[in-house]
Amino acid sequence: MTASPITDRLDDPAASRESGRQKIDWAREHMPILDALREEFEAEQPLAGERLGMAMHVEATTAVLTETLAAGGAEIAITGCNPLSTHDDVSAALDANDSITSYAERGVDDDEYYDAIEAVIDHEPTITVDDGMDMVAAIHEDHPDLIDSIKGGCEETTTGVHRLRAMDDDGALDYPVFAVNDTPMKHLFDNVHGTGESSLAAIAMTTNLSWAGKTVVVAGYGFCGRGVAKKAAGQNAKVVVTEVDPRRALEAHMEGYEVLPMDEAAAVGDVFITTTGNRDVITRDHFESMQDGVLLANAGHFDIEIDLDALSELAESDREVRPGVREYALSDGRRLNVLAEGRLVNLAAPVALGHPVEVMDQSFGVQAVSVRELTEASYEPGVHDVPDELDREVAEIKLDAEGIDLDELTGAQTEYMGSWDHGT
Amino acid sequence: MTASPITDRLDDPAASRESGRQKIDWAREHMPILDALREEFEAEQPLAGERLGMAMHVEATTAVLTETLAAGGAEIAITGCNPLSTHDDVSAALDANDSITSYAERGVDDDEYYDAIEAVIDHEPTITVDDGMDMVAAIHEDHPDLIDSIKGGCEETTTGVHRLRAMDDDGALDYPVFAVNDTPMKHLFDNVHGTGESSLAAIAMTTNLSWAGKTVVVAGYGFCGRGVAKKAAGQNAKVVVTEVDPRRALEAHMEGYEVLPMDEAAAVGDVFITTTGNRDVITRDHFESMQDGVLLANAGHFDIEIDLDALSELAESDREVRPGVREYALSDGRRLNVLAEGRLVNLAAPVALGHPVEVMDQSFGVQAVSVRELTEASYEPGVHDVPDELDREVAEIKLDAEGIDLDELTGAQTEYMGSWDHGT
Amino acid sequence: MTASPITDRLDDPAASRESGRQKIDWAREHMPILDALREEFEAEQPLAGERLGMAMHVEATTAVLTETLAAGGAEIAITGCNPLSTHDDVSAALDANDSITSYAERGVDDDEYYDAIEAVIDHEPTITVDDGMDMVAAIHEDHPDLIDSIKGGCEETTTGVHRLRAMDDDGALDYPVFAVNDTPMKHLFDNVHGTGESSLAAIAMTTNLSWAGKTVVVAGYGFCGRGVAKKAAGQNAKVVVTEVDPRRALEAHMEGYEVLPMDEAAAVGDVFITTTGNRDVITRDHFESMQDGVLLANAGHFDIEIDLDALSELAESDREVRPGVREYALSDGRRLNVLAEGRLVNLAAPVALGHPVEVMDQSFGVQAVSVRELTEASYEPGVHDVPDELDREVAEIKLDAEGIDLDELTGAQTEYMGSWDHGT
Amino acid sequence: MTASPITDRLDDPAASRESGRQKIDWAREHMPILDALREEFEAEQPLAGERLGMAMHVEATTAVLTETLAAGGAEIAITGCNPLSTHDDVSAALDANDSITSYAERGVDDDEYYDAIEAVIDHEPTITVDDGMDMVAAIHEDHPDLIDSIKGGCEETTTGVHRLRAMDDDGALDYPVFAVNDTPMKHLFDNVHGTGESSLAAIAMTTNLSWAGKTVVVAGYGFCGRGVAKKAAGQNAKVVVTEVDPRRALEAHMEGYEVLPMDEAAAVGDVFITTTGNRDVITRDHFESMQDGVLLANAGHFDIEIDLDALSELAESDREVRPGVREYALSDGRRLNVLAEGRLVNLAAPVALGHPVEVMDQSFGVQAVSVRELTEASYEPGVHDVPDELDREVAEIKLDAEGIDLDELTGAQTEYMGSWDHGT
Repeated sequence: MTASPITDRLDDPAASRESGRQKIDWAREHMPILDALREEFEAEQPLAGERLGMAMHVEATTAVLTETLAAGGAEIAITGCNPLSTHDDVSAALDANDSITSYAERGVDDDEYYDAIEAVIDHEPTITVDDGMDMVAAIHEDHPDLIDSIKGGCEETTTGVHRLRAMDDDGALDYPVFAVNDTPMKHLFDNVHGTGESSLAAIAMTTNLSWAGKTVVVAGYGFCGRGVAKKAAGQNAKVVVTEVDPRRALEAHMEGYEVLPMDEAAAVGDVFITTTGNRDVITRDHFESMQDGVLLANAGHFDIEIDLDALSELAESDREVRPGVREYALSDGRRLNVLAEGRLVNLAAPVALGHPVEVMDQSFGVQAVSVRELTEASYEPGVHDVPDELDREVAEIKLDAEGIDLDELTGAQTEYMGSWDHGT
Repeated sequence: MTASPITDRLDDPAASRESGRQKIDWAREHMPILDALREEFEAEQPLAGERLGMAMHVEATTAVLTETLAAGGAEIAITGCNPLSTHDDVSAALDANDSITSYAERGVDDDEYYDAIEAVIDHEPTITVDDGMDMVAAIHEDHPDLIDSIKGGCEETTTGVHRLRAMDDDGALDYPVFAVNDTPMKHLFDNVHGTGESSLAAIAMTTNLSWAGKTVVVAGYGFCGRGVAKKAAGQNAKVVVTEVDPRRALEAHMEGYEVLPMDEAAAVGDVFITTTGNRDVITRDHFESMQDGVLLANAGHFDIEIDLDALSELAESDREVRPGVREYALSDGRRLNVLAEGRLVNLAAPVALGHPVEVMDQSFGVQAVSVRELTEASYEPGVHDVPDELDREVAEIKLDAEGIDLDELTGAQTEYMGSWDHGT
Repeated sequence: MTASPITDRLDDPAASRESGRQKIDWAREHMPILDALREEFEAEQPLAGERLGMAMHVEATTAVLTETLAAGGAEIAITGCNPLSTHDDVSAALDANDSITSYAERGVDDDEYYDAIEAVIDHEPTITVDDGMDMVAAIHEDHPDLIDSIKGGCEETTTGVHRLRAMDDDGALDYPVFAVNDTPMKHLFDNVHGTGESSLAAIAMTTNLSWAGKTVVVAGYGFCGRGVAKKAAGQNAKVVVTEVDPRRALEAHMEGYEVLPMDEAAAVGDVFITTTGNRDVITRDHFESMQDGVLLANAGHFDIEIDLDALSELAESDREVRPGVREYALSDGRRLNVLAEGRLVNLAAPVALGHPVEVMDQSFGVQAVSVRELTEASYEPGVHDVPDELDREVAEIKLDAEGIDLDELTGAQTEYMGSWDHGT
Repeated sequence: MTASPITDRLDDPAASRESGRQKIDWAREHMPILDALREEFEAEQPLAGERLGMAMHVEATTAVLTETLAAGGAEIAITGCNPLSTHDDVSAALDANDSITSYAERGVDDDEYYDAIEAVIDHEPTITVDDGMDMVAAIHEDHPDLIDSIKGGCEETTTGVHRLRAMDDDGALDYPVFAVNDTPMKHLFDNVHGTGESSLAAIAMTTNLSWAGKTVVVAGYGFCGRGVAKKAAGQNAKVVVTEVDPRRALEAHMEGYEVLPMDEAAAVGDVFITTTGNRDVITRDHFESMQDGVLLANAGHFDIEIDLDALSELAESDREVRPGVREYALSDGRRLNVLAEGRLVNLAAPVALGHPVEVMDQSFGVQAVSVRELTEASYEPGVHDVPDELDREVAEIKLDAEGIDLDELTGAQTEYMGSWDHGT
């Protein structure tokens, strides 16, 4: 069965559209990069004739990207990439655009989720835009016939790129995909500042608890993890980092954080935030040594980092004690509080708004120019880095919008940097 | 006309009570100081026979204080101290307690607000507990006959204490009031960490904007201001401080912040947060030089720091662009966004939850022992510092709950600190 | 026996004077407050006819203060307040001033140290300026006859003020002394920024070791301790705080530091820095649990915080392994490294330069106006706070020099701050 | 003319050796990575039969590396890579080792400097170890006949690697060189923490000035620049960054620093620290707009970042006002203070000690295993990244020494990270 567009499924689509439009307008006001690109895209129609299939967190900033791409001439079908991250009103506002069909709906079950992806694929996309590679995976598994007509894809997340590279290593990736996540403009800002700030704000506003004096255990010290750690320390928390990689562990240690294996961290943490992109990071053994009242939240892509099955088994009962907080009561009286069902806390918590608008502007600026690039050049199947000049173009647009001036290399300086025959 | 209790005014008081109870329970779990004091109060009934009149932000943590005081034997009447800070469900849950009558209701108009204060005073309190001195003021102005039977009061805020001292200087304060705000346990934690964290989280979750790279202008570098500044810098904002006091200005400068007069800060800020406790901090001249899209928020007690009348006059139109954000459109196209109508952003924004639970535990721990003190000793009319040993008692309860051990002075050390006759 | 001036004891006083003069000139260039005051003092001669007896760390910034006071018309005799903190060349340069006699010499023994204090007292001072109250103590103990002609004194340090208050409490302080240390301009800057930065820089340059990743145990969380803690954290150290006071401990905890009793901190620290002003802070039990290779440094006034007698007893041998580092070898192979013989590390380490020039400018600005105040008004015997307007005057001079502008309260604002009868 | 070993040129080589040995011993105690490697090297003699030609900053930590390599069986000839960074006593102590000949001497002129490099080359090295590629350059330019017998080289610095890549691009690099600088273990720690901490400490101890409240202009936001910026901010300075690269500029902006072109930064800075690796970063135009009393320091490899020729021309006079500080007096009365003659301030200032010992342990650990690798495998001519497993090996040695445990991936986790076919 194929999903129908969101508009068909809403009680009052007009009200939803208006609410969604207001959210999109607010976002757009704070997204100068996409604003500049939209102007260019409207004038030059680089995407004319393309069909885009997108699976993204459908909230306001994604909508600004989607409309920017539509302004460039594309026909777009979009759905969510996480059942809890869709804003129905934003979805409805997008669906009202003649060039856009949105299937994204909050709270769908697994079948409905994949039906919606199928619905997008039915539009026979020539370019895919993914946040977690569900679209790429579904096309490769179930619609290999479409691959010939696909110019390429863009992947937004660390996790998605990781899985795509694994697929590529297996010789199983049959069209080119840009690793948007790996660009400096994405992971240096979105992962560090975006994930960091929005995860902490979502946790604070879900729990009404304070950071000062808390011991915050950050699992993983990749870009997301260091963002969470930095921002938590900036709110006067004590940060403990867990890692599997020796150099990242050493970086965390030299930054001044305590580095512990999770077996030891479990007993000292007040708040646990997973950012590894891997499964089973916090497991039964850890639950057993935790203090009463701890908070457990996930800032990684999938809801597999905290082993909720094991926690359910261990607990005598569980109940929602606040919107977005499920309390698991253990037999010895301890209570462990899981936020947002272990899903991405900055998107799935009831109060959550996703990444801050400005960091999405940077990530989505790279998305927009990467999509444009797929129409202008031809790439081999496989995972590709976004060409550096595109990333640099986005940085320049942003600096221009912020009114920040750089120094320019003089001729003598450029020559110096290119030479090797001068001494001390 | 006198207000009626909240229960009489709700459509479904039972549902409200349940929702409120859940909020109170969550708070109580994270308020170990009040928990320890409640145990003591239940056993010793220090407030037996007292009638408490309270005007506070009626949300979950205040409710834990109120119930702690009730557990000590007091009869309590309570109302709000700000029309937008009441949680009706919490108010309903309190009102369900046999020893507590709650008149607090969100969104009342000025008349209703003062009617509710009158209703509390009708209970003929023997002790008042204020957050902004409205209760003290109303009693002195309109019910001087009650003063003889009042043992004393407690005042929670910087602003309230400031006004009480002014009143005391005028010889117009006729009963003793503890300056709870001035205790180390209050202003070092509540003002710095509480106001700082909760204001920033409220602004982030109201706007979905990022702190990284933003220029945040903090008006006032008292305890609230330095909390806001510290936490904003901790989220990678550039902080600009405005001050009227030379030593505070110098402290901000030496901390690494830029110090500017508001006339200059107005033109460079992205976000403005007022914390002065004074009126007219951001005025027409400042609005005229601000950049398009700025955010204006207040973290001071009253809604007088940002001159909204002047802004209304200056603007061509205004509208709510998001819940809690009013956009003022100027004739030259610039848009200035005011959060929470210029009221305390960490309480009055739609998503706001007030101060974090743990910092309120500290402030309200001092409140509780101060109320107890008023029943145990007699004070002269006027503003009094909370006796230092009470503040210290609260700190010790907290450290005990956190499992933090101190060193203890040896006899030789105590003697050394008390001596003056030893040399280099 | 009475000491003779430094000039009489140097091999090449002319060379010393030149070297000292260069140091003083450098300091003066970066001391805008004293520069402004010197101009005023030269014009108005407020100290004409006074004899000043000073016991201070005789290095470049003290010299600028001393010359400023001399410019105001005073005759001055000065000696050191710590046998290891004197710069002989600076002492010589001061002694060359017709109005100044300097007895300060580096490395004198205890007898010579007290002889020099006697020599200063022989000048029959009318005003004393102390850094550790040795001058006040010597006069009270051995020269009570001089007290009648003494207008008052100024005390620079936390420790000295503490001892003076103890003396005052005993009814044993017979002339007025300003607690210069207690002024905001002193302890907010000198103690926090001055002690913090200079202690860390001295330790780094004495050992060539890094802060990143180190566990730094800071004993005491007063103003010096929080300066050391803040600056160490700012160099990416993990900070552990030990305290005896519950509120200070809680402040440190809420700042994000770990708070431990010294018994536990001893086993985890890499670097220990004492700032308590008390004796026996690190003792035999602590040495026994420390790791191999730790650094032990003191940033408190006296060399009594680390129990070196106990360490000597415990150690099999000790030797200087670098200038300023004495290694104590324990029988189990562990090596504990004591810096600067446990004296003030930012003054007594061989490379140490004392507090940074600019923070001394602020402290000494307060000294200068306090000395001026003693000639203009009469105070009762006992410890006195420096009048607030003097401290404020110094802040204003500094802001003026930095080109920092403040906001000014409007009439309406001043009225508002003085009023109490307006509502919400 | 060829240089002679340092021992032949010292007045009292025995005393120098002893002093140097003490420095080396101190360093070795704090270099657990090299200590572990030395044990392995002594046992396995991986460098037996090799002749190493080294041009490095000859101070204590380099000596520990050199002795570690000698312990592995190598014959070593070493000289300095900067005329001002050699410690003669350390050089003498090295020269006393039977397997090591040291030509390094502080303060040699240009001719002597290059003579010493020639002397090293006369030993006909089979492996070169460079800090600034002077050895590689001299061999390619003047001794191409030796290249056939050279197994490869290691280059320590950003600047050297940059120049080697330029040389490689020109097809002019005729033997393999490991870009040791580019390893995570080097640039994440040495450049960030090492350059950052040691540069600031050297500046503080050279000037006795404070960081709090200062505006510090950091030219370049590479790894060195961000280390300097981070550590300066951690001492409560305001940081201004200048950049030529848009993404680095944006990173600095999002970190909360102000980003300005040098033309504007020149007028607002109190301290300028260059870290670009390029020439002419601060030039005549900038000097003309600077404030009186500014400090100018370089933390980049060569002394070409601050245009001292232009400053000399512009100034009326210059003189040394403190050891390591040259004051240039301009005709309008302004004084600009250049530290360490514009050479690497953390090495060339009189008090400077080079990088902290622990960070050198990490960098030199990579050097040691890279040299070992050159004896074990054969590489093509050109610049090579150090194999990742070597860098990882060094990290693991360090974590082991620090007692830091990691988590280990379970089989299920490893499989998960390698898979791509699981969904949301």
